[in-house]
Amino acid sequence: MKFIIQRDQLMESVQHVMKAISSRTTIPILTGMKLEATQEGVKLTGSDSDISIESFIPKEEDGIVYVEHIDPGSVVLQAKYFPDIVRKLPQKTVEIESDNHRNVTIRSGSAEFHLNGQDPEEYPQLPQLHTEDSFELPIDLLKNLIRQTVFAVSTSETRPILTGVNVRIEDGELHFIATDSHRLASRKIPMDTSSELPSVVIPGKSLTELNKILTDSEDTIEISVTENQVLFRTKHLYFLSRLLDGNYPETSRLIPEQSKTVVKIDTKELLQSVDRASLLAKENRNNVVRLITKEDNHIEINGNSPEVGNVTEEVVANAVDGEDLKISFSAKYMMDALKAVDYDQVKVEFTGAMRPFLIRPVDDEQILQLILPVRTY
Amino acid sequence: MKFIIQRDQLMESVQHVMKAISSRTTIPILTGMKLEATQEGVKLTGSDSDISIESFIPKEEDGIVYVEHIDPGSVVLQAKYFPDIVRKLPQKTVEIESDNHRNVTIRSGSAEFHLNGQDPEEYPQLPQLHTEDSFELPIDLLKNLIRQTVFAVSTSETRPILTGVNVRIEDGELHFIATDSHRLASRKIPMDTSSELPSVVIPGKSLTELNKILTDSEDTIEISVTENQVLFRTKHLYFLSRLLDGNYPETSRLIPEQSKTVVKIDTKELLQSVDRASLLAKENRNNVVRLITKEDNHIEINGNSPEVGNVTEEVVANAVDGEDLKISFSAKYMMDALKAVDYDQVKVEFTGAMRPFLIRPVDDEQILQLILPVRTY
Repeated sequence: MKFIIQRDQLMESVQHVMKAISSRTTIPILTGMKLEATQEGVKLTGSDSDISIESFIPKEEDGIVYVEHIDPGSVVLQAKYFPDIVRKLPQKTVEIESDNHRNVTIRSGSAEFHLNGQDPEEYPQLPQLHTEDSFELPIDLLKNLIRQTVFAVSTSETRPILTGVNVRIEDGELHFIATDSHRLASRKIPMDTSSELPSVVIPGKSLTELNKILTDSEDTIEISVTENQVLFRTKHLYFLSRLLDGNYPETSRLIPEQSKTVVKIDTKELLQSVDRASLLAKENRNNVVRLITKEDNHIEINGNSPEVGNVTEEVVANAVDGEDLKISFSAKYMMDALKAVDYDQVKVEFTGAMRPFLIRPVDDEQILQLILPVRTY
Repeated sequence: MKFIIQRDQLMESVQHVMKAISSRTTIPILTGMKLEATQEGVKLTGSDSDISIESFIPKEEDGIVYVEHIDPGSVVLQAKYFPDIVRKLPQKTVEIESDNHRNVTIRSGSAEFHLNGQDPEEYPQLPQLHTEDSFELPIDLLKNLIRQTVFAVSTSETRPILTGVNVRIEDGELHFIATDSHRLASRKIPMDTSSELPSVVIPGKSLTELNKILTDSEDTIEISVTENQVLFRTKHLYFLSRLLDGNYPETSRLIPEQSKTVVKIDTKELLQSVDRASLLAKENRNNVVRLITKEDNHIEINGNSPEVGNVTEEVVANAVDGEDLKISFSAKYMMDALKAVDYDQVKVEFTGAMRPFLIRPVDDEQILQLILPVRTY
């Protein structure tokens, strides 16, 4: 195997593929990165058996040459050193060569690295997915769907199914839901009625890593699902993740259908005042802060830490309608939800101090955040 | 006590003073920050008993009003919360008030924090230094002196004196020296012959913190020394550190007076090639790399990690004079030294593979870095 490649292009692909490589894997070959050169270009592969990522660098694209002098072949390199080596190469191009004994030479300028490669035949083949259950989305929309839901997955393995995001297409809508049983994040978008998808649960970690790799763009990404795997594919990226086993709980009945107190307020003002109140709620479990409705469309946010002190702030809302309310909740959950809403104005709908409450944009029913209050009264 | 102060100005002072405050101190009151308002302005104090820092915000300076409505007094606040509170205040100004029971109120916009203050009488008085041993330096020069030496102090408490930087004035030169017994960093600058200073050893940590607080400027800083303390004073900053006890070793005899091999080379090229060679020397103790003189003013830098591979690079020097040489040394020490040199071209003077070698700018005798080689042959 031999080829000469643009360093920056190689670096980007290496960084993507590294997201799937773990030094803690029990399968030694998976601590490595597979390099494969064909006449079409160079493909890098990384996998921790939960997530597998392939990144392809074409020989030439849009008139720009990325790879030259290709002698096809493949090898596996220790992933621990390769990214730093590529990053610190002295020249813009790099030559990578592997001989019959898998001695790999990396040359750039007058620097020459010799690495012991491993047998590519030992590297597991990634499954080829055959499925009819696939659909396409613009990349920036997928990134939003992930960002607005994935933070709410559970980090505890008590109920493993809750560590994933439930993804399904139902009634002509694509629906992402995540909950850790204390809060829930949900985002829908309308879909082509022809799209079909069984309900699946994608590990939160997979979506987080995918989101890091994808750069905002209106290009589309293809999502394909089989019984136990999901594949995200763009022009040069192939991102495969296992699915979580088991049935995702029915969450629709958690969402209150009517509300007793509705607060319409500037998102950023509420976010910042909850942030301030949380400063003196650090000593509490869960950073609990309190919201109290006041007269004249005012609400009060306060935080209290008996040993340190307390903080009180009145915020002018756009509207406070319905019953008076005192409610306590996790400042962290509230801030996460408000950051996910993505609109300047937000509507918070309460059904009493002990019932879950909803946060959503004033004029958009597709984003919904739900938080369970904390009992303090 | 009561005053209204500009938030950004307060924030900057709080950040400076926090550098001296440790949550791990054995004296509880020192986990707090002292605030003192007088008709001249507001003074903040922090101390961990090794380092004490006072930062002063004048009532008015250069026609800009920083503090208003001053009602003199003082209080001690828990430093754990205060910086975050100040950073997140909603308005540009903040009112801080302490009542007779040391209940402190912090108001900004509609946000109101109530904190439990502590008795300022319990806060230790900082010593007033009376000394004739003082001199002045431009701040940016002091920052350079620190940066070029402090990295070489020892991090081990085996010989506590080596955790400090030796500072002295001798033969009309101010001299900073640091060594961990494997390498040495030295910087001299010519001084007014009238300046006097006994040889003192300032803890490396103190100089590192001081360097973080000082911003590059041609303003002067006054340095005063007593038997066991050193004070750095600018217009609004008072930085006091204890000195280390004991005699600093005589280091001048470590420095070889003649050399057998001299390499003149571009600093950055040598730095980057040592950096690359060190990538495959990580498995070794101390990241050992090797330098070998070659023909035609070339040197070879290489790194080797038997299990992973090796790296070799030829670098063209400006001149390689004297005996042929193969020498091994810590890549980290070499990179630290080259970064400290501050000149584009550097002269490396060797006296054989087992003897310490010197790194200094080609045309400046005031900066000197010394490294002990590693025996590998």
